[in-house]
Amino acid sequence: MAHHPPARPAIQESVVRLRVTYAEVDRMGFLHHSNHLRWFERGREEFCRRREAAYREMEDAGVLVVVVDLAVQYKAPLRYEDLADLSVKLVEVRHASIAFEYELRRVADGELAAAGRTRHAFVTREGRVTRVDERVASLLRGDETVRRRGEVE
Amino acid sequence: MAHHPPARPAIQESVVRLRVTYAEVDRMGFLHHSNHLRWFERGREEFCRRREAAYREMEDAGVLVVVVDLAVQYKAPLRYEDLADLSVKLVEVRHASIAFEYELRRVADGELAAAGRTRHAFVTREGRVTRVDERVASLLRGDETVRRRGEVE
Amino acid sequence: MAHHPPARPAIQESVVRLRVTYAEVDRMGFLHHSNHLRWFERGREEFCRRREAAYREMEDAGVLVVVVDLAVQYKAPLRYEDLADLSVKLVEVRHASIAFEYELRRVADGELAAAGRTRHAFVTREGRVTRVDERVASLLRGDETVRRRGEVE
Amino acid sequence: MAHHPPARPAIQESVVRLRVTYAEVDRMGFLHHSNHLRWFERGREEFCRRREAAYREMEDAGVLVVVVDLAVQYKAPLRYEDLADLSVKLVEVRHASIAFEYELRRVADGELAAAGRTRHAFVTREGRVTRVDERVASLLRGDETVRRRGEVE
Repeated sequence: MAHHPPARPAIQESVVRLRVTYAEVDRMGFLHHSNHLRWFERGREEFCRRREAAYREMEDAGVLVVVVDLAVQYKAPLRYEDLADLSVKLVEVRHASIAFEYELRRVADGELAAAGRTRHAFVTREGRVTRVDERVASLLRGDETVRRRGEVE
Repeated sequence: MAHHPPARPAIQESVVRLRVTYAEVDRMGFLHHSNHLRWFERGREEFCRRREAAYREMEDAGVLVVVVDLAVQYKAPLRYEDLADLSVKLVEVRHASIAFEYELRRVADGELAAAGRTRHAFVTREGRVTRVDERVASLLRGDETVRRRGEVE
Repeated sequence: MAHHPPARPAIQESVVRLRVTYAEVDRMGFLHHSNHLRWFERGREEFCRRREAAYREMEDAGVLVVVVDLAVQYKAPLRYEDLADLSVKLVEVRHASIAFEYELRRVADGELAAAGRTRHAFVTREGRVTRVDERVASLLRGDETVRRRGEVE
Repeated sequence: MAHHPPARPAIQESVVRLRVTYAEVDRMGFLHHSNHLRWFERGREEFCRRREAAYREMEDAGVLVVVVDLAVQYKAPLRYEDLADLSVKLVEVRHASIAFEYELRRVADGELAAAGRTRHAFVTREGRVTRVDERVASLLRGDETVRRRGEVE
């Protein structure tokens, strides 16, 4: 883990602000390390939504996007009620997979709390790997659209 | 459950907008019924934060607020990516307990998704029931303060 | 909540032993109150599995079982690594709904940690309420079958 | 991720059997990828418990064990009610960190569902990195003790 490659340039990037809720912290009072993955996922969801590449529609159309591998480095704890900015970068779009990188920073002092990356494959409901849909890929590569009023969390 | 008493008048009320995330839905595609409790809790947290009655400070001071009992009625499913408005009402402040009621409505059509109530006791770290701190009680009864910019999720 | 009706006689009962894991406890060091619902659900799953009324098969056949309402009374905290015995009783089988009651006791001292009940309706994938399948109802009313070796968690 | 080093020889190993519960699966019907981390953690807990190196005691003594980094490769989905065997290997004990590796296999066909590794540091409650306690390290390196009757989940 110590020698993983440097962060790749982003094809596109979104930033999402999140707050640590009570149910997400552990006995130490820190954001439980499994919840960073749920936050990364929420970042990806928002990244897609801002490009109208709604994951729900893909999945309803029978294409599943599954996590193939991931890595996380935990740098500093996030505590209950802390605010953090999650930057989500699309760093790779291949035939049958895409990859994202993440940086999570405490709002109070800008300190890096965690960094990570995830790789995702597109599979059919029967489990067969399928190509990334070209329309989806092009939406993902596109700029953020204006956020529709009342649509944010 | 069918005959529980009608909703009590609110001492104070907050409304929080939430979106169903992927990790929160189950195999049916619905918000898992345990997550309604986590949403209610997030509503209480925001209710307190808007009155600067930060729960974290109470807990750091050795006073724990524990759930004593709760009831939930599930009326309509919430699906992945649905937006919902959660109304949180403080309905009771007694010597050693407080109670909240909740209504969760889909933003798209205003339909009631769930209703519930929770009762909470104040206990010391050793488990002894203690009186509700008068300063906290008075903050809870107070109006929402102006939300500080940059502090929202 | 204080005056809810006394526990009804069980049609059938199962007992499942569970241990509090690290990810399930909160900042107070207690089993987070939303996790009691997940434990109740695990109890129902095991109750059904022991009667070969596998929920997965119902759901694959297009019949969903949704929680209609629930109530929980929290009596004593469960801490990290505590063992607890969850008793799950089927207390009601109606045309379109079934109800379970739960008691959760610490193994160390037998103390009641929580009690609760849940009511469930059978609905089609389109959301229409449907009758409880008679074959399923009769399996649920039946005795526990011998647990198959190697099949327990 | 594709070229990560081969699995290291285990200093010690435990195997824990787990079943996918309803609350853990996502809309695709698969064990949600964040839950693999919770399962790894449950595996570590059981690994320690079988050596009487109870994590709870360390934490009560003011020593926190935090996840420093982790990596997971997802090979095949686990579905609701699937049983899986999780092998947990202690692969490294250094001055201030320890590392575990994991293999998760479906019981039905022995297929590898996921593999991963985690690295952990010992820190004080104030966040200062501290040495691995020698007594704990020696317990971790030791063989599994006989499992006490009635103590298993």
